[in-house]
Amino acid sequence: MTAFQPTPRTTVHRRSQRASYDEQTIFSILDEALVAHVGFIDAAQPYVLPMAFARIGRALYFHGSTRTRMLDRIAAGEPVCVTATLTDGLVLARSAFHHSMNYRCVTVIGRGRDVESEQVALAALRALIEKLVPGRWSEVREPTAQEMKATRVVEIPIDEVVAKIRVGPPIDDEADLALDAWAGVLPIQKSFGTPVAAPELPPGKALPEHVTALLQGNRRG
Amino acid sequence: MTAFQPTPRTTVHRRSQRASYDEQTIFSILDEALVAHVGFIDAAQPYVLPMAFARIGRALYFHGSTRTRMLDRIAAGEPVCVTATLTDGLVLARSAFHHSMNYRCVTVIGRGRDVESEQVALAALRALIEKLVPGRWSEVREPTAQEMKATRVVEIPIDEVVAKIRVGPPIDDEADLALDAWAGVLPIQKSFGTPVAAPELPPGKALPEHVTALLQGNRRG
Repeated sequence: MTAFQPTPRTTVHRRSQRASYDEQTIFSILDEALVAHVGFIDAAQPYVLPMAFARIGRALYFHGSTRTRMLDRIAAGEPVCVTATLTDGLVLARSAFHHSMNYRCVTVIGRGRDVESEQVALAALRALIEKLVPGRWSEVREPTAQEMKATRVVEIPIDEVVAKIRVGPPIDDEADLALDAWAGVLPIQKSFGTPVAAPELPPGKALPEHVTALLQGNRRG
Repeated sequence: MTAFQPTPRTTVHRRSQRASYDEQTIFSILDEALVAHVGFIDAAQPYVLPMAFARIGRALYFHGSTRTRMLDRIAAGEPVCVTATLTDGLVLARSAFHHSMNYRCVTVIGRGRDVESEQVALAALRALIEKLVPGRWSEVREPTAQEMKATRVVEIPIDEVVAKIRVGPPIDDEADLALDAWAGVLPIQKSFGTPVAAPELPPGKALPEHVTALLQGNRRG
């Protein structure tokens, strides 16, 4: 079992039993999350923006227009924080106080850089699309040289990182167990609804196998 | 139609048609999101943490243990950023380049403060539980004085704020419309799965009406 090394900044002091540094646990959360929230500082003000992202090995990849401020800050090597969160359930306790949420989240702290290699940039874009819809990359037109030129890809190494996870039932006070209230967990599920074809698509065009596979449950549960 | 005033920090420069300052739009996103990502600075490092939250009027409320660092920073009036994001769909284009995501997000920039009034603190906790499961507050044990003492509630005014929204089909290049690839949107749906009763609950205890109402579709779609 490979694990990351906790640092003072990734050491969880409260409810430390919820922390994990296990690589596989961390990777699985990052790979399931569609969006991460990226924190950066500009003029002493923190900003938090949602971003689609991909992971390759021990690095996160973000992309956007070459004029995006957030990518500027990341590429400049300024301190950033990336958090990806999955909400798994509402935890309903007998007391208001012990209500909670089951979740899995990963926080990566560090500094990023520009991806200079066009090969790595292309691999990052491919990893992102394959993460969203496995099998899609080979079905669509690949980026042109001009599109790659208009796209900035940045990389943040996964090095200083911690996962936090809450699972299981509500933890009520002993004295509250006799209360009449229902208690338990309401699992939160994500699934895909009926695909909406683009307006210009020829009527009756069948869904490709990579989409039907996704609908058949890859992301349910 | 009430709207917030854009500021230099909440003015969206790229794809500005996605920005909204409409109060109702902003409130509806904040009220649907279970979790917000809160960004704050500690020792020149930004941190981003997921937090359950409630909204009352033009203020956001967060709570936790009195020893939580993030609440400390908010209560100290330091600059913070709160972003709540809803992912609505995967946007599959004919080209890799034009893949996207449909989403709604709200970013609140500002400074917070401690909630001194126990009445307001209680109202905030109540708003949170009623947001998660409407009708639940009156079914559970209310916080004791001791629990309130152990709970810090902080408030961030909603004042400098912007929503960003992407809706609709993929926007492919004209030249790509003839490509054979399927294109369209895969809607992302959230729903609740089968409730898991707490282990100490008497077997066969019926689900309360406020839970069955939630399961019957309040959060679907």
